[in-house]
Amino acid sequence: MAKRTVIFKNKPTIIGSYSIVGPKEGKGNFASYFDFIMKDDCFGQDTYEKAEKKMIESAVAGAIKNANIQASDISLLLSGDLLNQIISSSYAARNFDMGFLGLFGACSTMAEGLAVGSSLIDGGHFDNVVCATGSHFCTAERQFRFPLELGNQRPPTSQWTVTGAGACVLSRKGNGPKVTMATFGKVVDYEVNDVNDMGAAMAPSAMDTMLTHFRETGRTPDDYDLIVTGDLGKLGSEILIDLMEMNGIKLGLNYNDCGQMYFTRNQNTLSGGSGCGCSATILNSYIISKLRKGELQRVLFMPTGALMSTTASQQGETIPGVCHAIVIESDVKPQGGGVQSKSINKSTTASKGRSKKES
Amino acid sequence: MAKRTVIFKNKPTIIGSYSIVGPKEGKGNFASYFDFIMKDDCFGQDTYEKAEKKMIESAVAGAIKNANIQASDISLLLSGDLLNQIISSSYAARNFDMGFLGLFGACSTMAEGLAVGSSLIDGGHFDNVVCATGSHFCTAERQFRFPLELGNQRPPTSQWTVTGAGACVLSRKGNGPKVTMATFGKVVDYEVNDVNDMGAAMAPSAMDTMLTHFRETGRTPDDYDLIVTGDLGKLGSEILIDLMEMNGIKLGLNYNDCGQMYFTRNQNTLSGGSGCGCSATILNSYIISKLRKGELQRVLFMPTGALMSTTASQQGETIPGVCHAIVIESDVKPQGGGVQSKSINKSTTASKGRSKKES
Repeated sequence: MAKRTVIFKNKPTIIGSYSIVGPKEGKGNFASYFDFIMKDDCFGQDTYEKAEKKMIESAVAGAIKNANIQASDISLLLSGDLLNQIISSSYAARNFDMGFLGLFGACSTMAEGLAVGSSLIDGGHFDNVVCATGSHFCTAERQFRFPLELGNQRPPTSQWTVTGAGACVLSRKGNGPKVTMATFGKVVDYEVNDVNDMGAAMAPSAMDTMLTHFRETGRTPDDYDLIVTGDLGKLGSEILIDLMEMNGIKLGLNYNDCGQMYFTRNQNTLSGGSGCGCSATILNSYIISKLRKGELQRVLFMPTGALMSTTASQQGETIPGVCHAIVIESDVKPQGGGVQSKSINKSTTASKGRSKKES
Repeated sequence: MAKRTVIFKNKPTIIGSYSIVGPKEGKGNFASYFDFIMKDDCFGQDTYEKAEKKMIESAVAGAIKNANIQASDISLLLSGDLLNQIISSSYAARNFDMGFLGLFGACSTMAEGLAVGSSLIDGGHFDNVVCATGSHFCTAERQFRFPLELGNQRPPTSQWTVTGAGACVLSRKGNGPKVTMATFGKVVDYEVNDVNDMGAAMAPSAMDTMLTHFRETGRTPDDYDLIVTGDLGKLGSEILIDLMEMNGIKLGLNYNDCGQMYFTRNQNTLSGGSGCGCSATILNSYIISKLRKGELQRVLFMPTGALMSTTASQQGETIPGVCHAIVIESDVKPQGGGVQSKSINKSTTASKGRSKKES
């Protein structure tokens, strides 16, 4: 079999990142890490779709500002989202005088952008690119399930699409966490057909990518101080743990899932968070901040996407999944030595971040 | 400004290609070049969407077969299409045991795939990848405009979405046309809002990419024996010629547009062909065949995409465009010497190709 894992010799550097979230997300477990918390879900726009677009614009502009470079030094924006024809990304791209690569990997988009962007930097094709994605609870619900006005009941397996966007600038030079590997995922379909059970639909693709990554790199879960899937949620991440165990690999306390971690228990999101913005906002706030400080040394970041569509579902199709894996390593030596944080849930709300509330 | 043009040192090679089209397309100007002409638009499926998916599957499998390599030697499939959540591509990807990068660049997708795929080959990340895309008249009409059953009248500016799919295998080694450069396009919006006038919406992005390509490479139109845009159609290509002239660049007889060339005069497609399949099937039949024989030496292939969406249009948005440019060069010396075919329309139907009718 042709390999699907790439090892980056020139180690593309994340020189800046930015995260913006909605008010509910701003009360979740990562509240103190986000750059910006919106006052309401409309973000001053007259539709939710326009709010989603504006969030992606803000994330891209924020990441460029935090990277401390000029937009004119960036060759490409790589972005995608959940909306039909990825309108949030492509309409946001109008505002940036740079090339645009539109991606669709559903909720795996942050990793797809990082995989392609890092390859372009590593190959010497470009000096700087920016990767972005985002999602919005209200646009996703009405496009994929029911209009919010219907007030329909949500089953226990359902997840809450995160209202948020994240972006980061990848560069050939500079200081910051390094992208050292990428395992490109394949489309896997275990014939789940419940649009309210995304975790089950995506877990097999996460398993496939994780097994491929370990096989092709010779690594094991112990080589990482954090292995984090995108948005399998509570149920999906349990399924992944089972699937991996069936393949002889035990995921320990260094494994977690962004969807599972996102909200507090009393926020009533059932199986947890989801959406492109779920893993993107945690990566571009909490994870990158910990890598910058050396509190995390080596992270396996694995956003998962459910490639579902109302048209396909109406025609009797099942829901395939895809998952790409990105290895990000700190450029700061660990302070205590060795692996720092085997379980990250505990420290989440404790330490102070840099988030600003919209005023 | 950061450059958007990449020059490939390792010259990724197109070692195999395949094109499949619908019956109407099989009576057009390129009939003799296509690998396979479908007997009807359903292709044995019970919905048009499933037919579109099957066409992409066939194109990918056909390109791999024509490349004379095993699917297991290919690391990645890069594909996208016009349908919501690019279902034709992602559902087709289930059948191939390789990584999947989902792209969305509307009708520019063939070039987006070639730009990213060539970068991955050139950078030494993968040995073989396959790039694909496709479109279907019936799925596009009902998703973007009106159900066919309505039988509504088409305005003179409207174009006919090509029912067809094309794919090609890019490799580090082997014989065949070489991808030597790519100019990554940016999103350009001249505020056109007529969903029946895609040519006008896309022409400004083609102009931007063409100007960027000539500026960054120091080349002029005379450096190519064929400059071909994707699917501007009759009206859009006239607009592009005007826009380029306003910028001091005269496009001559070596410029043409796939949409304009696709159908015969009496096929009544008004402004011409469009859709991802339009430029993809011409590239993967006529253009590559001419490059293989040395009858074309250097082609500037520029598919254009209209990033439109019913949701965005309903919310009062205009239609932005994007266009990526790919330089493909023959590995066969010209037989007569110099530029071979300044005007390709004449020779289109004359020479015999390799097309097979579905039986």
